[in-house]
Amino acid sequence: MKKLLVIGIGAGNPDYITMQAVKALNQVDVFFLMDKGESKDKLIDLRREICERYITDLDYRFVQAHSPERERGEVDYRSSVDDLNLAKQQTFERLINEELSDSQCGGFLVWGDPALYDSTIRILQAIQASGACEFEFEVIPGITSVQALAAQHKVPLNQIGRSVEITTGRRLAAGQVSDADSLVVMLDAQDAYHQVADQDTEIYWGAYLGTPDEILISGKLKDVADEIERVRKAARLANGWIMDTYLLRKP
Amino acid sequence: MKKLLVIGIGAGNPDYITMQAVKALNQVDVFFLMDKGESKDKLIDLRREICERYITDLDYRFVQAHSPERERGEVDYRSSVDDLNLAKQQTFERLINEELSDSQCGGFLVWGDPALYDSTIRILQAIQASGACEFEFEVIPGITSVQALAAQHKVPLNQIGRSVEITTGRRLAAGQVSDADSLVVMLDAQDAYHQVADQDTEIYWGAYLGTPDEILISGKLKDVADEIERVRKAARLANGWIMDTYLLRKP
Ligand SMILES: C[S@@+](CC[C@H](N)C(=O)[O-])C[C@H]1O[C@@H](n2cnc3c(N)ncnc32)[C@H](O)[C@@H]1O
Ligand SMILES: C[S@@+](CC[C@H](N)C(=O)[O-])C[C@H]1O[C@@H](n2cnc3c(N)ncnc32)[C@H](O)[C@@H]1O
Repeated sequence: MKKLLVIGIGAGNPDYITMQAVKALNQVDVFFLMDKGESKDKLIDLRREICERYITDLDYRFVQAHSPERERGEVDYRSSVDDLNLAKQQTFERLINEELSDSQCGGFLVWGDPALYDSTIRILQAIQASGACEFEFEVIPGITSVQALAAQHKVPLNQIGRSVEITTGRRLAAGQVSDADSLVVMLDAQDAYHQVADQDTEIYWGAYLGTPDEILISGKLKDVADEIERVRKAARLANGWIMDTYLLRKP
Repeated sequence: MKKLLVIGIGAGNPDYITMQAVKALNQVDVFFLMDKGESKDKLIDLRREICERYITDLDYRFVQAHSPERERGEVDYRSSVDDLNLAKQQTFERLINEELSDSQCGGFLVWGDPALYDSTIRILQAIQASGACEFEFEVIPGITSVQALAAQHKVPLNQIGRSVEITTGRRLAAGQVSDADSLVVMLDAQDAYHQVADQDTEIYWGAYLGTPDEILISGKLKDVADEIERVRKAARLANGWIMDTYLLRKP
């Protein structure tokens, strides 16, 4: 039986890696690296660096595959993600069938935690359900950007006895969030924090968390929202891309 | 300046520890262990075991302090937690003042991640605000029980493009949750999953996640809710206590 390990590597700091992940890395024969285009080369490099740093058994290799891109613009989000996942599924099937021999172990290095806004688990389950290839898989959790954010700001995610909602910039912008007093926003391409009505809401914002480029800003929305927008734009321009996450806390 | 490290050690499996946490452990002179009574001795033992396993610099000591208990029964939850935190604050102040000399480093080993349903960060902030003692602190994230749950069930926390709400059993039982299609429930002392109206909701339940006693049950509520209640009661009886978490996913 082929075996796949879906390994969370943490969201930024290479030291976020767990001992469980280090052990898993050392079981892998073939690492599948999904290439998301030039601007994200840094993320591929970080994966290679993690392997070099933590793998003691040197008998492994990398297979880099082009990761299909989601269609942007005026298309339905959900169906463009579905299309994308179908394309990814075909790529994964090919990799598993062609690059892995029986009884070998393949590894996917997932940014942050594989359970949070990542499609790897879903795709592997779809392949298993389709019967297109035979394998078993395991999931190794990793530190998410949400946890990196809270740790770097030294702030609890929840208020005492209250809920935390984790959501996307798209949903916040569309008003599709609950009234939870702690709201964590990821995948925000549109500065959706500007939409929040109560300007006394505290925002804890972080970009490139856990990396040398990390930026942290916090304060009441009315005081820091414009600064965040400015810093965000400049950072994105300088780096070619940005990863940022924030916690909104109602007063 | 005294320094405190609030170190997330992961929620169960000792291998959930991160490299960052291992480095932090090795900086600590004095570990403060909060003793929560006999039935939870296992959790203190696990902390000692983690120190023994990962600390190479052997110049450290433990200080065990009795952790005040929350008043149970017919009291307001929020104010009983406030009282509790005030009592804890006094304990922490005493520990920092009496057990740590200037320029020494103290460590709190927090189960899971310090940002999720844990009071350590909040208490340290309250002490800093009160000016009762001078110190700086850092937070090191750890794998939460939520992530352990998702990994062990091999299930994503979120649906594509949707939100995830993390909440408590108390809130679920009181109907104080949003209509998020992914709801993670922690701190449930009352089998609150029985309150969910739509019996086609899938539940992914896990107890003692990441430990040798781990139990996993999943399925539609109508099929597995009674089984979970039975298994939960038996496990709690056998072990004297239970830690369990679950994900509810609407159809
Ligand atoms: C596709 S999701 C992947 C999330 C990842 N699985 C995790 O556990 O954090 C990508 C989003 O995660 C957030 N993110 C990931 N890494 C980050 C970092 N180092 N700093 C800030 N945000 C980050 C951003 O909101 C980004 O849009
Ligand atoms: C006070 S909260 C602490 C949460 C912790 N900081 C974390 O990050 O998971 C305690 C609750 O966490 C959950 N929990 C902690 N460890 C667990 C485990 N190993 N298995 C299942 N649930 C766990 C249970 O819901 C328990 O009631």
